[in-house]
Amino acid sequence: MRFAHRIYKMEDKELLSLMELAEAPDIISFSGGFPSPETYPIDEIKESFVRVLDEEGKEALSYSSASGYNPLREEIAARMDRLFGMDMTKDEIIITSGSQQALDMSGMLFIDEGDVILFETPSYLGALNALKAYEAELIAVPTDKDGIEIEALRQSIEKYGDRVKLIYVIPDYQNPTSRCWSDKRRKEFVEFISEYDIPVLEDAAYAELTFGDTLKKPLIAYDTLGQVVYCGTFSKTFCPGLRVAWICAHKRIIEKFLLLKTNVDLSSSAIAQRQMVYYMQHYDYDAHIRKITLLYKSRRDLMMEIVRKEFPDTVEFDVPEGGLFLWLSLPAGKDARELLALALKENVAFVPGGSFYPDNAKNNEMRVNFSNMTEEKIVKGMTILGRITTEFLK
Amino acid sequence: MRFAHRIYKMEDKELLSLMELAEAPDIISFSGGFPSPETYPIDEIKESFVRVLDEEGKEALSYSSASGYNPLREEIAARMDRLFGMDMTKDEIIITSGSQQALDMSGMLFIDEGDVILFETPSYLGALNALKAYEAELIAVPTDKDGIEIEALRQSIEKYGDRVKLIYVIPDYQNPTSRCWSDKRRKEFVEFISEYDIPVLEDAAYAELTFGDTLKKPLIAYDTLGQVVYCGTFSKTFCPGLRVAWICAHKRIIEKFLLLKTNVDLSSSAIAQRQMVYYMQHYDYDAHIRKITLLYKSRRDLMMEIVRKEFPDTVEFDVPEGGLFLWLSLPAGKDARELLALALKENVAFVPGGSFYPDNAKNNEMRVNFSNMTEEKIVKGMTILGRITTEFLK
Repeated sequence: MRFAHRIYKMEDKELLSLMELAEAPDIISFSGGFPSPETYPIDEIKESFVRVLDEEGKEALSYSSASGYNPLREEIAARMDRLFGMDMTKDEIIITSGSQQALDMSGMLFIDEGDVILFETPSYLGALNALKAYEAELIAVPTDKDGIEIEALRQSIEKYGDRVKLIYVIPDYQNPTSRCWSDKRRKEFVEFISEYDIPVLEDAAYAELTFGDTLKKPLIAYDTLGQVVYCGTFSKTFCPGLRVAWICAHKRIIEKFLLLKTNVDLSSSAIAQRQMVYYMQHYDYDAHIRKITLLYKSRRDLMMEIVRKEFPDTVEFDVPEGGLFLWLSLPAGKDARELLALALKENVAFVPGGSFYPDNAKNNEMRVNFSNMTEEKIVKGMTILGRITTEFLK
Repeated sequence: MRFAHRIYKMEDKELLSLMELAEAPDIISFSGGFPSPETYPIDEIKESFVRVLDEEGKEALSYSSASGYNPLREEIAARMDRLFGMDMTKDEIIITSGSQQALDMSGMLFIDEGDVILFETPSYLGALNALKAYEAELIAVPTDKDGIEIEALRQSIEKYGDRVKLIYVIPDYQNPTSRCWSDKRRKEFVEFISEYDIPVLEDAAYAELTFGDTLKKPLIAYDTLGQVVYCGTFSKTFCPGLRVAWICAHKRIIEKFLLLKTNVDLSSSAIAQRQMVYYMQHYDYDAHIRKITLLYKSRRDLMMEIVRKEFPDTVEFDVPEGGLFLWLSLPAGKDARELLALALKENVAFVPGGSFYPDNAKNNEMRVNFSNMTEEKIVKGMTILGRITTEFLK
């Protein structure tokens, strides 16, 4: 049987195996990008489902409109206005079935075969795979500690010219490095890109997971031309099992997404959207986020402590100021995939850094999640990983 | 801003407007393809959500695996085995976020730009739009009362040769005509198609909504070569708001869908899938389907009664033996869109038949839903529609 061409370019099952690894019961897995299930407000979610079904059961079990449940779009717009000093309305919001769907629809909206997508490296594999399905050429742009490097970006745009159709970035506590773009770089980037008619896909999955006191303004808040497509989600700050996320963009772009949404799944779950609205209106979502970031911060601290104690000095890292991941660099030339093979033998998993570069271009780094395992497992797993790493680097 | 080429070919907002029309509160809408909300087993669904959250809250709010929650895949496989005398396992099932996602992923899996998709006409607009997004050429194949016409199909395959990459059919109580393929035609079709290496997309959304005593075997039950991709859903027999559906196909095809599923939304809602399993294991889903088909049958009877009384004899129809729709034919040359404009003035809506042909090729038919409106509204709305139609045809 013949499949479409795109399928034959899509042999990277890495993300799939990650999800499966993370499901094995005996393993201490630092490989997922998951929030910690013990933080889910299960009782409040249950109460929300019950109330939604009692009060609006028929509507909650019917199709939603393709753009999403209006009160949820309004809640999200109001929240973005409050957090980021913006002036959004619901018409600039469309609900998606998780942020992954927003990435897929962005590929569908902007990419023809042979188009070029620029993205900061390293970057989120799942986005790259979704965009690759539209047969784009993925061109890596280096980053420094402040964010994507503007000069390198300029060179890429000059080199590929009109073929550049999208720039994909994760400015906040990026997956996999947990780096957060500086305010200065954000401004520079938006100013720079305003010279070009190229849409920017801003993946804000980790935006609210800061260990500091303030949130940084997203790129879309600096954007005056309507170039930025902002992808937000409840998966990392609330729970992923409901599959509720959103795109925020200029109306003329939202209208196009609306056409695509009807194609890809008609609408997102009406009951999940209504549950989310009930929760936001009756409980303190901000307090919930503060609670989980405190937990993740303490797990980060614990993990840093063990890394400093158990890992050799040749392993380099920055202390993450938010997000879910610690990014470790082995000395150049070392291959983290070999280290993973050793770790798996002792039931410890992480993600080798090559998975975050197209064609596994760089292999000496590793992504270690600190949000999802209990303190006990962090101590046990990281101590094992430290010992294995020490032996591996001898 | 430049969008992908596919977007400019995608100006048919018909389905979108339908969904919106159906949401206007004052209208008597025969336009949706929805089950009747009063049939939703709200209390049982509530109980299922509560029990799932009590017993497995953490898992239910986390990511599901991309292939779907295994107990749900097993329930579906067992059900298909029982209903259709098949021998499925869960590995031949992948869970999708509604059947629409299965259609979209089928386009993504099989279609390159310029490929040809054959489909019976008239047919479901939403599928055609989803497939059109992959820039296929859609070629209509006529149907008679037994199903797709084999000789016409042969001619199309001969004409388009290797470009034919998919055949899309709805053998059971088809949308929009409610026709159901005969057993004989099903066998002939599968036998005929086995000579070609072309996948068949079998949309079985209405398969269980029969007003008779027995279900017909789906095409996939006749298929020995693994050519048929069967799309089943809970949206029409249970409720659409959960967005739970499935694809059933040969393992080698399911493996490819699995790659795509990870791209398009990572996984379907874990809680919705677990809720569905709880319901299937603790309540009588078959009895629920019998109950709703009895209701729809009585609404069909009521609608036929009014059509016979209030509509002119020049309006032709078959009595639907299942499904959700009555398909009315106005005399040739009459345009149902004009009739819709008149009906909307009196707050009655239906779908003009042109929406079910590519490029609105035929315009004298109309799809009238009988499942979704109360008896009172059926009487009122169809009496109005009969009067308007009588005047329109004078």
